[in-house]
Parts: sequence; C-alpha cells; structure tokens
Amino acid sequence: MAEQKELTPISALGEFGLIERITKEARCQNLSTKLGVGDDAAILDFSDHETLISSDMLVEGVHFDLSYMPLKHLGYKSVVVSISDIVAMNGTPSQIIVSIGASARTSVEALDELYSGINDACKHYQVDLVGGDTVSSRSGLVISMMAIGYVEKGKSVKRSGAKANDLICVTGDLGAAYMGLQILIREKEVFKVNPNSQPDLSTYEYIIQRQLKPETPVNMLKIFENIGVPTSMIDISDGLSSELIHLCKASKTGCVIYEEQLPIDHTTVDFGMEIQIDGTIAAMNGGEDYELLFTMPLDMYDTIKRYPEIRVIGHMTDEQKGCQLIGKDGTLVQIEAQGYSHS
Amino acid sequence: MAEQKELTPISALGEFGLIERITKEARCQNLSTKLGVGDDAAILDFSDHETLISSDMLVEGVHFDLSYMPLKHLGYKSVVVSISDIVAMNGTPSQIIVSIGASARTSVEALDELYSGINDACKHYQVDLVGGDTVSSRSGLVISMMAIGYVEKGKSVKRSGAKANDLICVTGDLGAAYMGLQILIREKEVFKVNPNSQPDLSTYEYIIQRQLKPETPVNMLKIFENIGVPTSMIDISDGLSSELIHLCKASKTGCVIYEEQLPIDHTTVDFGMEIQIDGTIAAMNGGEDYELLFTMPLDMYDTIKRYPEIRVIGHMTDEQKGCQLIGKDGTLVQIEAQGYSHS
Repeated sequence: MAEQKELTPISALGEFGLIERITKEARCQNLSTKLGVGDDAAILDFSDHETLISSDMLVEGVHFDLSYMPLKHLGYKSVVVSISDIVAMNGTPSQIIVSIGASARTSVEALDELYSGINDACKHYQVDLVGGDTVSSRSGLVISMMAIGYVEKGKSVKRSGAKANDLICVTGDLGAAYMGLQILIREKEVFKVNPNSQPDLSTYEYIIQRQLKPETPVNMLKIFENIGVPTSMIDISDGLSSELIHLCKASKTGCVIYEEQLPIDHTTVDFGMEIQIDGTIAAMNGGEDYELLFTMPLDMYDTIKRYPEIRVIGHMTDEQKGCQLIGKDGTLVQIEAQGYSHS
Repeated sequence: MAEQKELTPISALGEFGLIERITKEARCQNLSTKLGVGDDAAILDFSDHETLISSDMLVEGVHFDLSYMPLKHLGYKSVVVSISDIVAMNGTPSQIIVSIGASARTSVEALDELYSGINDACKHYQVDLVGGDTVSSRSGLVISMMAIGYVEKGKSVKRSGAKANDLICVTGDLGAAYMGLQILIREKEVFKVNPNSQPDLSTYEYIIQRQLKPETPVNMLKIFENIGVPTSMIDISDGLSSELIHLCKASKTGCVIYEEQLPIDHTTVDFGMEIQIDGTIAAMNGGEDYELLFTMPLDMYDTIKRYPEIRVIGHMTDEQKGCQLIGKDGTLVQIEAQGYSHS
C-alpha cells in the first residue's frame, strides 16, 4: 500500500500565514496594477480606459464535484469562467480577486493545489491576482471570483447592439465540455462498482480536456481590433440556446441558425452516439464551452470568412420571428432556453 | 396563533426571474457607472482616478447567526463591511457586486429581506449595485461582496506609510459591537430556556445597534480633503490590537497607545461590568467596529484637535519598541494580535 501523506489543517497556519502562503506566487505583471494583495483594497489605474467588472460563485456539489474534478483544474477553470465575462465585453482581463470558503476538512495542501491552478491560469492569461479572502465554510468548498478588465472607451460590446440581418458567429466548437462531463460521471459510476478498473479514455481526451480545462478565446480581442467590434456579444456558458435567447432579448431581435453550420468536434459526435445524446443537443443545451457568441454586420461576411477562428452559424431576424433552428433536414425548430441550468 | 405566511421557494422564480426581482430596485446614481446589472460585466469609468477594489465573504454559522441577525440588517451590514475597506484607502465607494449562495431552504421572501437591507445601504452610501450572481449552496447562506471605489491619483492611503512620531488616531468609539454581540448571544440562550421572556434591552440599544447595523465613517473623506491625507490607514474590523499590528508591520514602526485615550462608550463599559469583560479588552480585541485607525504627522496635532470626530490615542515609535499599551495605572503591556478571529 502506498504511504499516506500527512495533510496539514488550515488552522495550523492561521489566517495570516495562509494569506502569505497563497500570495507568495502572485506576481503582478500588468501596468494597471498599482497595488496588489496585502492592503485593504487593491489599487488599479486604467487611465483613459473603461473598467469592466464581473463576478461568479462556484459551489461544491452544485457547480463542481471534487471526485472527478482535480483541484488544480478547478482553480484554472474558475479563472477562465471568470475572465470569460470580461472577454465577452471585448475587454482585456487584467486582474482577479478570489475569495474561498473552505470547510474544516480542507487541507493546506488542497488549497495549494487549487491556487497552483489559479496561478497557472493567471500566468497563461497575464492576469494579476490582487486580492481575496479565505474564510471557513460550514460544508463544502465555495469559490467566489471577481474578474476585472479594461476596454478602450466606446469599444465595449454589450448583449444589446444586434440588428436584424447581422451575422451570428461563434468561436471554437460547442458541446464538447458537456460530453466530457458525461464521460466523467460515467467513469465515476464504473469506479464505484469496480475500483480496479483502468479505463482507456485516450480516445476521448479532447472532450474531457474541454470539461476540465476550458480556455477563453482571448485571441479574438486582437481580431476585433483588426476587423472591428461585434454589434453584440456574450460568452457561451449555459449552452448556445440560452445565450442566443439572451442576445435576442437584449437586442430586441429574432434569429435563425443552421444546424449544419454548428461547429461540433467529431469526438463530441462519436461519444454522443455511444450514450445516445445528439451532438446538436449538446451544442445547444450543454453549456460550459466558454466560447464567444457574437454578431457582425452582414457586409462583414467576406472579411469574417478569412478567419478560421470564426464560424458563421446564422443571422439575426425581426423580433417577432423568435429564435429558430433550421435542422439538417430542413425542419424548423423553435429554440427554447433550458432555464435554470447549473446555477 | 398567528397565521403562517406561505413562503416561495427560489426555484419557483427560476434564475432569470430571481435576477429581475433582485435588481428591480437597483438604481444607478454614480456617473462612473456606465452599465450596471444585466450584461456579462459592469462598465465603469473612473477617468483620471485610480480604481480601488476589495472583497469579503460572509458565511452563515461562521460570520453571522440568523437566529439573532435579521436578514435586512445582515444585508445592510454586509455592504458596510465591504465598502469600509474602500474608505480605509481614502477612497469613495461607488459600486458593489453581490454574489449569494442560498440553500434550498432559503425563500424568495428571505432574499427580498436581505436585498432590502443591501439596497438601503446602497442608498445611504450612494453606492450602485452593478452585478452579482445567485447560486445554490448546499448548506447555509454565503454572501460574497466586492466593493469598488475611486480615489484621486496619489491620494490613496496604504497601511505602510506611517513614520515614528506620527500621531495614531481613531474615529468613533470601540468595543461596542463586540458587547452588542455578547448581549445577543445571551438573549438567545435565555430564549432557549424561556421562549416567552420579553427582555427589556432598551438600556443597551446603542451597543446592539453597533453590532447589527454598523456604519463606516465616510464623512472622514471630506475631512481628509480639508486637512490632508493620513500617512497610513486601516479599518477596524478585527479589533484595535490586530489593526495596530498590521499598520506597524506594514510601516516598519512600533507604537504606543494610552488606555485612558481609548474612545469607549459608557454603555460598552456598563454592560462589560455586567458580564465581567473589561471595556478596554472589548476595544482592543473585540472587532466589528468598522471605524478608521490612521496616522498623521505630529505637527498636525492642533489641526486634528479641532475635529471632534477624531481621537488621538498615541503615536508611532521605532520598530524595535514593538506595540505597547500604557494602562490607566501607568503599567506597560505589550500588544499581541488575537490572530484568527472570525474568518
């Protein structure tokens, strides 16, 4: 049997020891960060830019399951979830603030793992960790993230600017994170029955990766600088259906999208066949893709087609037409929100 | 028997219904708020000011007990706790973001109460609620607050600027919130034994108020505009001892304060005698006062004395002297932090 490593309770460090341990890795790399962790508040200077701020709360047992989500990945993913909202406003993420509610059974080593993922994401996205709080929680782990970013004045993109006939575009591919989650849930059940099973998941590595370590397409910020900003934008966190409805509601438009244009990876389709869930359903309702959904004026079509990062999936219509999906066989389906998904 | 009012489960509203209900009261009153609740992120414009950001997490059973903390007061207090960090940097609080983790047993009516307190505090302090998240929590209520504010460039006050001989000043009075908590805990015990007891708490209204509905001294921002900014500052959330040690550590100084100069309300002293806790102990170690502790150059003494809002309690010394309290009887006590207080 492998030797059990002794774990350290958080109380052994005390509040200030804990803060010191967590923040020793934090290196501020943004000029806008004038003062990071360690005082009552962080000081930021965005000079003539507008400041963007958003927040997310992730709760154990509701938003993540530690039995198949390694803490390091959870840390990384929490940052991505958070800065994705800044990117969706056409902003450059620059700082995050992380508050953690940890139960008595959380060890210092577990927090180290979580923060190592947070720090990795900060490095990858050049974001500074500038504050936070670590408190006791009576039950599971609670992660509250706040993302801060900046955008040139007048260049922020809201949900509400789309017009009828605007092109509807998405980045990356959709539905993979949802399918990745289904594999992880299935393997957890298999493991319960036979703890010695060694499943070969290499075929499905891509979709598992999309669930455990999603990325937000920050590269699009440069592209928008070149081709012009979208008329409306949102990040795809709850599934394409729900986000399309948000854009249409805010912009007072309808929309039509084409099933055959949806970017769905073949692994998503393959695993979907195995568990009898259609790839399109995963793309429309799955969520957690953290790709961008945005609209562009119709006359931008030729320009957009030069960018392999962007897929045109349909166009905006008049409000009274509602949100429509044209199936591969030409059938027309009304798109409905899946409502209260995972929050 | 009184008729029981039917309560609405949160699930009856759904995520978006809930957001709409919560934000219908939110009126943005700050010019810096370009876009509030309802998009991926809030848009703020502080033009040539620096942005200040801080966060706090409050957990049921750890930071508050709903059996003696009414939800409306909890909402109000959460905002005060949060913006107090901005004021402690000499910043004007302008926006907050509130994320709530609510358990299945939390009703819509309970959230209404909580938000009514949050909205009252927003109105009182002219702060805009510009974002947030409401998610399920597996056990108790979790409140994560982010406060945002602004300060003229170069006018922010850190913990680290104090020099030996600087005057140590505090606002308001200390120890009352701690004594208020002791009353509430005592009455909860009495109630358990005799649910029909009707205690007369009017004598101690002040200290109960200080616990349930603290305020942060924003009026000091105007005073600092007139007399000049402090050399260092912190808000008193964990008790004077702990905050003095923070200032001294960050500024690399020692300090000496005088017991007879500590501002302690007579109600604090009176109730302290009843439960045999010295008023000075409550002031030094109690916490939750949300007053300001700051330092000023020695030559400001005559100016400061003109302001009844400010009490000089001692002065900074060389680092090697440590933190000292001179008792009323002339005895010298070394001040030590109470460590891991309530977070």
